[in-house]
Amino acid sequence: MTDSAWEPVPRTRTYELVLARIEEQFLTGRLRVGDRLPPERELVELLGVSRAAIREALRVLEAQGVVRSKVGTGPDSGTVIAALPSEGLTQLLRLHLALANFPLADVFEARASLERSSARLAAEHATPGQLARLRELLARMDEPGLTREEFNDADTAFHVALAEAAGNRLVTDLTVAVRGAVRHTILGAFRQLPDWEAEVARLRAEHHAIHRAVAEADADRAGELVEAHVRGFHQVIAEVGPQPT
Amino acid sequence: MTDSAWEPVPRTRTYELVLARIEEQFLTGRLRVGDRLPPERELVELLGVSRAAIREALRVLEAQGVVRSKVGTGPDSGTVIAALPSEGLTQLLRLHLALANFPLADVFEARASLERSSARLAAEHATPGQLARLRELLARMDEPGLTREEFNDADTAFHVALAEAAGNRLVTDLTVAVRGAVRHTILGAFRQLPDWEAEVARLRAEHHAIHRAVAEADADRAGELVEAHVRGFHQVIAEVGPQPT
Repeated sequence: MTDSAWEPVPRTRTYELVLARIEEQFLTGRLRVGDRLPPERELVELLGVSRAAIREALRVLEAQGVVRSKVGTGPDSGTVIAALPSEGLTQLLRLHLALANFPLADVFEARASLERSSARLAAEHATPGQLARLRELLARMDEPGLTREEFNDADTAFHVALAEAAGNRLVTDLTVAVRGAVRHTILGAFRQLPDWEAEVARLRAEHHAIHRAVAEADADRAGELVEAHVRGFHQVIAEVGPQPT
Repeated sequence: MTDSAWEPVPRTRTYELVLARIEEQFLTGRLRVGDRLPPERELVELLGVSRAAIREALRVLEAQGVVRSKVGTGPDSGTVIAALPSEGLTQLLRLHLALANFPLADVFEARASLERSSARLAAEHATPGQLARLRELLARMDEPGLTREEFNDADTAFHVALAEAAGNRLVTDLTVAVRGAVRHTILGAFRQLPDWEAEVARLRAEHHAIHRAVAEADADRAGELVEAHVRGFHQVIAEVGPQPT
């Protein structure tokens, strides 16, 4: 981790300090989406740091999708605060989950918790169109002769569709990111299962039961079934041996 | 949103494509933390895109903390894949939550779900040191004459300490980020409460009951109490009127 004892610590600290100050403005709501950040030279004065530190902080915020620079000199120019679209947040989270190497048990516990919540909300809020989408994916998973990859794609899509039917964008975003982060791990486990046909039959039956509880607006049962489904599947893949996370 | 009909779309698309390809390598586990990315000119050939697109993608990954450039020509030089530290993930998530302007009900529902999971795990895993930390924060919140800000700080710290006692880093990171994102909103609500003393007495009693369930290793009760605590508090602040999120 520490590759060089002579890293330029003070500069890093300054730019992180600038980031923290700007973040504070967001968190308190003093700066909101659509607002413009003060110009560079004003930030230099306000925060008492170098222009280089300000620029570095702005570059990071720009790369994170938090601000957008508009060139020119008109009233619309400057650094404008932008909301990261849902896909952006999900992508970023999925990426970090993939790299952070969380223990698989931790990821499945988080999934169990979030998907329980998604399923409960879906039971309360799912529209006829969303229920039809779930049925479509159930039919897809019921097709005989699917490859493990094809089944996994439909399985992922089913869990994503369930999260989307929850009508809670934050829970959906978190669920989709966490499910997406383990997609390849699950596929790897599928490939190693000694009795694929037995396992897939169990997964199909569980998905049907989850859909039924959601369609019948039974939030408690939908939540319990999904939680048990995620935990049970984690048991199965924990038994086939260590998986690449 | 669309400020200019003449944005250089193809270039943006190319660099996003590069990002997607690199992400795919992370998600499949073909590239892991500590591995080196192929050098720029090799990526140009592998992906069939311009050097500018590669550089832009690398800059974004660097700003996100996903890769780190090591200068020089030795065997250690190049672009190395780094795991974002927990605080980094939490900070990024908190920032985006603050800006994404999720409905407050959505954030509280996500909190209820994540904190239920944290509390259940804490009941199973909390160490004596972690229980002592929770007691310390209970004592702090019991002090008479605390300002609303001081109470809010201790309240936030109590929920963070509970998440940390869960022993599941992912659930902890998500819980801390979501709790952090509503810290200022909760403080705003505290300031508007018509009967602060009654509310704070209720919060104190609930925190004590949660600590008791965790200390007694009663996962079911700890989970239910926290869920009810978060939902109940959301009811209270929903009644004092619209809050800045």
